[in-house]
Amino acid sequence: MSSKIRIAIAGYGNLGRGVESALACTPDMELVAVFTRRDPAGLVLQSGGVPVHAMARIEDFVDAVDVLILCGGSKTDLPEQGPALAALFNTVDSFDTHAKVPEYFAAVDAAARGGKRVAVISVGWDPGLFSINRLYGEAVLPDGASYTFWGKGLSQGHSDALRRVPGVQGAVQYTIPSQAAIERVRSGSRPSLTTREKHTRECHVVLEAGADPSAVEQAILTMPDYFADYDTKVNFISAEALRRDHAAMPHGGFVIRSGTTGVASSQIMEFGLKLDSNPEFTSSVLVAYARAAFRLGQQGEVGARTVFDIAPGLLSPKSAAELRKELL
Amino acid sequence: MSSKIRIAIAGYGNLGRGVESALACTPDMELVAVFTRRDPAGLVLQSGGVPVHAMARIEDFVDAVDVLILCGGSKTDLPEQGPALAALFNTVDSFDTHAKVPEYFAAVDAAARGGKRVAVISVGWDPGLFSINRLYGEAVLPDGASYTFWGKGLSQGHSDALRRVPGVQGAVQYTIPSQAAIERVRSGSRPSLTTREKHTRECHVVLEAGADPSAVEQAILTMPDYFADYDTKVNFISAEALRRDHAAMPHGGFVIRSGTTGVASSQIMEFGLKLDSNPEFTSSVLVAYARAAFRLGQQGEVGARTVFDIAPGLLSPKSAAELRKELL
Repeated sequence: MSSKIRIAIAGYGNLGRGVESALACTPDMELVAVFTRRDPAGLVLQSGGVPVHAMARIEDFVDAVDVLILCGGSKTDLPEQGPALAALFNTVDSFDTHAKVPEYFAAVDAAARGGKRVAVISVGWDPGLFSINRLYGEAVLPDGASYTFWGKGLSQGHSDALRRVPGVQGAVQYTIPSQAAIERVRSGSRPSLTTREKHTRECHVVLEAGADPSAVEQAILTMPDYFADYDTKVNFISAEALRRDHAAMPHGGFVIRSGTTGVASSQIMEFGLKLDSNPEFTSSVLVAYARAAFRLGQQGEVGARTVFDIAPGLLSPKSAAELRKELL
Repeated sequence: MSSKIRIAIAGYGNLGRGVESALACTPDMELVAVFTRRDPAGLVLQSGGVPVHAMARIEDFVDAVDVLILCGGSKTDLPEQGPALAALFNTVDSFDTHAKVPEYFAAVDAAARGGKRVAVISVGWDPGLFSINRLYGEAVLPDGASYTFWGKGLSQGHSDALRRVPGVQGAVQYTIPSQAAIERVRSGSRPSLTTREKHTRECHVVLEAGADPSAVEQAILTMPDYFADYDTKVNFISAEALRRDHAAMPHGGFVIRSGTTGVASSQIMEFGLKLDSNPEFTSSVLVAYARAAFRLGQQGEVGARTVFDIAPGLLSPKSAAELRKELL
């Protein structure tokens, strides 16, 4: 009988594949199953020997899985799967619709309490590690201001918005933080920054045959919420260039807390990420929190949790004594 | 009757004064007493109205204090005070002798359990926030390497070492991280860096009348542990310049985790601090963890804890629901 933490994946897209490869680096955990809404027979995993099952049969595996990592999207998958699966399994997910977190937390919490399970929601880097750094910044330097910058990185939401514009065949959008704004924040001057001053948006667009470039550009530049409040640049490229040059999913950003202590001491805290692969990094954070979810479950805890509720030590495979000796 | 968390300070040096001023920014806490080994009548606080008592009488105040913040030094004060006071009060301290953490933890843990108190040890930025970032880095990116750089900052230990050299009247030492080494780490190349490659040491020394500059310089450059393994620069300055230009206590540094996920995606996590006042920042961290110590005590927990054991949310005056809504 295995003493490893038995992990299963629900949903095998970019995140699910990232979880699968992150688990190859964690000797205390093993992947025991992947659940999919597609035809299981048609799914080829990176790692051999791990069974793929239909999502419809997931209830049969309640006793075979210690933690289920939910790898669906926040828009339609998780609002339904999150509560349903937290009633059956300890879960970890990356729900990232900031505005809907309170209602999602409440739904998952009720389901997890009913099933006596632990569900860690909104894990990743934002929400996730960035949130933790916003909290540490505010708690340590109450007289201060917090700033979050994103990028340079590919924004899935904004790329989707571009693809909905009539005349667009394919597109990607990069969010680019303003280096000048970052330097102003790092100086300790606590500037008030407008949306336009913090980030610019760079669009690479493939036109459909016969589409009017200037009409497409105008539709993009004036799109409310997504582009109208930003300095946005639109480049038209070929379908081949899109495939060749824009297939990677880099991202990153900064959380900066600028505060004052004593009479006038400027104190700056900064956390930054520079990621070649946004989904693989998010998956790696999910896997670390799966370890914490397992331990909380072992301790008899039930209900929904966020990264704010989880002591750092629970993420590490090392014992508390090892951590004190090696990392403190 | 007050509903604020009642904080007391044991030891009124730089750290104690920093705690006092940090408490002015935390409406949920109040400073109720300062304890000193000096003559209480001779101690003038920054804030009026707070009583100063002799350390010898501290046992009389067990019921008047929710959390006692220990502001003594790690070399001689805390090894004795830490366990003794953790038997009587919930405590927070900044014990920073890395090699002695396991033995200090054991002593404080036994005392705190005996007294049914919570004691949070080794709080500050290193150990403290830097330790947390080393842990998050290692847990999220197990295939990777961690790097800690310190400075530019005034090192108290190295300044003390300079002052023990015969012929030295006064001195300060700045630790300076190598920008080239930092850039190599940020590139994701995971370099192996020698001690000499990571930091340089800059000494500003005031000679005693009649001292031989070259003898003093040689004694410094060849001092084992402190300077011999570094590229060290010695500047001789006047007593007036020392007072005028080197009275501040800036510090800071970086914790960088360079890891790989998937096939070959480079992922970089970086946490950095740029501090005008090292002691004031450490004090601000101590105050945030005093809030956590109070809450753990309220929950009935006992024993020693480190920053690894404390969920981020416990540091914030906000409720869990507020944190989810505002910061997640």
